[in-house]
Amino acid sequence: MNDAPLAAPVTQSVLDHIAATRSQAHGRLMGFLAIPSVSAQPAHAADCRRAAAWAQAELDRMGFTTRIVETAGHPVLLAQHRGPGKAAPHLLYYGHYDVQPAEPLALWASPPFEPQIVQAASGPRVVARGAVDDKGQVTMWLEAFRAWHATTGTVPARITVVLEGEEEIGSPNLEPFLRDHEAELRADVAIISDTNMWDIDTPAITTRLRGLVYAELRVRAALRDLHSGLFGGSALNPINALTRLLGGLHDARGRVQLPGFYDGVADISAAQSAEWAKLGFDESAFLSEIGLHSPVGEASRSGLERLWARPTADINGIWGGYQGDGAKTVIASEAGAKISFRLVAGQSPDRILESFRAFVAAHAPADLHTEIETFGMAPGFEVSADNPWVGTARDVLAEEYGREAVLIGSGGSIPVVESLRRILGLDTLLMGFGLADDQVHSPNEKFDLRCLDHGTRAHARLLGAAALR
Amino acid sequence: MNDAPLAAPVTQSVLDHIAATRSQAHGRLMGFLAIPSVSAQPAHAADCRRAAAWAQAELDRMGFTTRIVETAGHPVLLAQHRGPGKAAPHLLYYGHYDVQPAEPLALWASPPFEPQIVQAASGPRVVARGAVDDKGQVTMWLEAFRAWHATTGTVPARITVVLEGEEEIGSPNLEPFLRDHEAELRADVAIISDTNMWDIDTPAITTRLRGLVYAELRVRAALRDLHSGLFGGSALNPINALTRLLGGLHDARGRVQLPGFYDGVADISAAQSAEWAKLGFDESAFLSEIGLHSPVGEASRSGLERLWARPTADINGIWGGYQGDGAKTVIASEAGAKISFRLVAGQSPDRILESFRAFVAAHAPADLHTEIETFGMAPGFEVSADNPWVGTARDVLAEEYGREAVLIGSGGSIPVVESLRRILGLDTLLMGFGLADDQVHSPNEKFDLRCLDHGTRAHARLLGAAALR
Repeated sequence: MNDAPLAAPVTQSVLDHIAATRSQAHGRLMGFLAIPSVSAQPAHAADCRRAAAWAQAELDRMGFTTRIVETAGHPVLLAQHRGPGKAAPHLLYYGHYDVQPAEPLALWASPPFEPQIVQAASGPRVVARGAVDDKGQVTMWLEAFRAWHATTGTVPARITVVLEGEEEIGSPNLEPFLRDHEAELRADVAIISDTNMWDIDTPAITTRLRGLVYAELRVRAALRDLHSGLFGGSALNPINALTRLLGGLHDARGRVQLPGFYDGVADISAAQSAEWAKLGFDESAFLSEIGLHSPVGEASRSGLERLWARPTADINGIWGGYQGDGAKTVIASEAGAKISFRLVAGQSPDRILESFRAFVAAHAPADLHTEIETFGMAPGFEVSADNPWVGTARDVLAEEYGREAVLIGSGGSIPVVESLRRILGLDTLLMGFGLADDQVHSPNEKFDLRCLDHGTRAHARLLGAAALR
Repeated sequence: MNDAPLAAPVTQSVLDHIAATRSQAHGRLMGFLAIPSVSAQPAHAADCRRAAAWAQAELDRMGFTTRIVETAGHPVLLAQHRGPGKAAPHLLYYGHYDVQPAEPLALWASPPFEPQIVQAASGPRVVARGAVDDKGQVTMWLEAFRAWHATTGTVPARITVVLEGEEEIGSPNLEPFLRDHEAELRADVAIISDTNMWDIDTPAITTRLRGLVYAELRVRAALRDLHSGLFGGSALNPINALTRLLGGLHDARGRVQLPGFYDGVADISAAQSAEWAKLGFDESAFLSEIGLHSPVGEASRSGLERLWARPTADINGIWGGYQGDGAKTVIASEAGAKISFRLVAGQSPDRILESFRAFVAAHAPADLHTEIETFGMAPGFEVSADNPWVGTARDVLAEEYGREAVLIGSGGSIPVVESLRRILGLDTLLMGFGLADDQVHSPNEKFDLRCLDHGTRAHARLLGAAALR
């Protein structure tokens, strides 16, 4: 189905080792999953530390130099292997050992921290909290390191591992860690497995993530709440004003009306467009799963373009006045809303925020006092299809799956990718093996062993290919 | 200052009696105010009954036939006097013996149910909960009856008194009472003293009240809350849709955009316009007291017109999505708002509601499920300046004050006025003697004795004038 070269002989030995030790690898993942390293729950602080120590012991056995680095929260495991020496490429693997809370427990078919192998239509899968996010995906590259080490006595590249314990609570201490260890962490590329395939048969590399400007707009008019009968028709109603202002965020064709909002937003290439068209994305099916039928957004763009490659404006919350039962004839003194802009590469978060401020100032009526606070400013992310590591990963995935990998986007953000670029100047290769139905963050989280096995082999191949660079 | 005829000799004797017994009248009001007849608080149910009995005893002493009519809540005092007999005009006096809760007690300078006479710049005033609303205003016509009875042995008109005990909790049992006693209550006009003067020197008759359509609009899109990154740009955001829809309620000139909204709304007459212009309403001062500077509403109308004679649309509450601290990147599944329309005479509440439904249907995007619930439907009220009772009241007030009374409006609603018109077919003469600074519903409620005394005399004069009709 493809004419990629066969793996080099050494890589083939490594793949053979992986095949021969497959069930031990699954067993190790089960051990990792049994540690309830829930970062959000203080009662599990010791379990978080235990999970870091578990991974540390694994990496110690593969010849890594490891240390547990304390932070203001849960510690970071930092591990390094010099591989073949200074001339070899330097790869930075980022992952996280913490998991989401498992609640509500009653919805789990089996206890979340007693991992089970369950047979399903797609084959066997492991079910546990963290099965895919991120312990299962981390396991793929850990097992690839192990196979290389077992087969060759070393790893074929310089490798640095950063395994943090606070991803599920927003990584509050990761940036200070990155800054404190900047010199050690300056690699050639960062590699993260925390994303999805297109489907179980189609490998994918995520080359686009949307950024975010998240703002809270608070508006205020009179000094106190007013009787709507006695003042209505003379006094400014801040909710009337807020809806009028926010109601103008889009035009009738779905385009965001902030001045300069689309500055720097590039159209996707013809090649990218053709590749996405081939995916056969069924937006109707995508929407009907959530009870919707008519797509919104820019009328002239395809569904995947709107989700992956176009910026948006969404009001995430709104409040003001009387929200209780029945009637209260009040003109409130204040109101507010949370508004987020998803950005794509090429847009400047600072400029979008400035444009939003200008939009609010231009549309606020006299007497409306406005205040804007921000909770998150991250640019969109895009790795070029021409990036050599993307090319290497495509080759490797094509070899592993016997079919081409697709370059996809994700409408969401992965803040660490932005931190790695800003602080360390690194591009990130997002090569993940999750599936859309993995129940990430939900009860009965699972990871198909077929994905796990392919992913482990793909990571082993990537290391082999890196050695040849 | 005016050339109104002097009061007829009998009326003059009644006024002399009022002057001679002025301090006793004040004392009786103090006794009435000492009864904590708070209708909203079950602990005061017996006090409500005591207040009704107090007024009953007073009317008994003036030759009225009285009864306490039980309702599902606090009782109604119904009192009747045949006066000079069937040929005399029949006047229905409505008032209420219940009062608002006095809390917060700490803000009162003296205990709310220990009435005090306090000296102020404008003269002496009585301070207590209910001082003006409505025990003080009821006292004015009770004392007028008493003076007529003491002077002539009877009253000069057929009089029916309805004194209810649930006005401050929305009069839930008044309409059944009106229907049950329809035959007895069919008078020539209803008279209510529960409104204000223009200022302490300028008497006023309120001839306009705005009506109300109060609606709750709930909107729903997806079956569940969505991640704004993963779905933004494809899935409908109901808060985006709600703000766009409600943001279109007004045009840039402040006109409400519901189709047919202004149908039936008459311009005020040139005479009315001239009269209001003479009042010298200072909208800037009105707004600056609440921290505002720029009037809103229909740009082409005067301030008093917008407050009294023009319909409005105000959003009284709005909600949806995330309202907590910080950021949550959610596209909510639902949102809602409370919207009220203040109506003027000539507008049909039913038609306004239908128009709102049509407006919502026309502006809701595909996939937005909308639901509208109503909490109040009352038409606007207007008594013509040509109404003979308004004419009589103007004459009487001119005699009493030595200056013309003005016909004013109120932007709010008085539901009983609408009930009296709908159930009994009665126009209501709203002749009140409160002032804007009376602290109605607030701590330190007061009533200027100057207003009380003038009001008592005006009511006595009105009875004298009625006798001549």
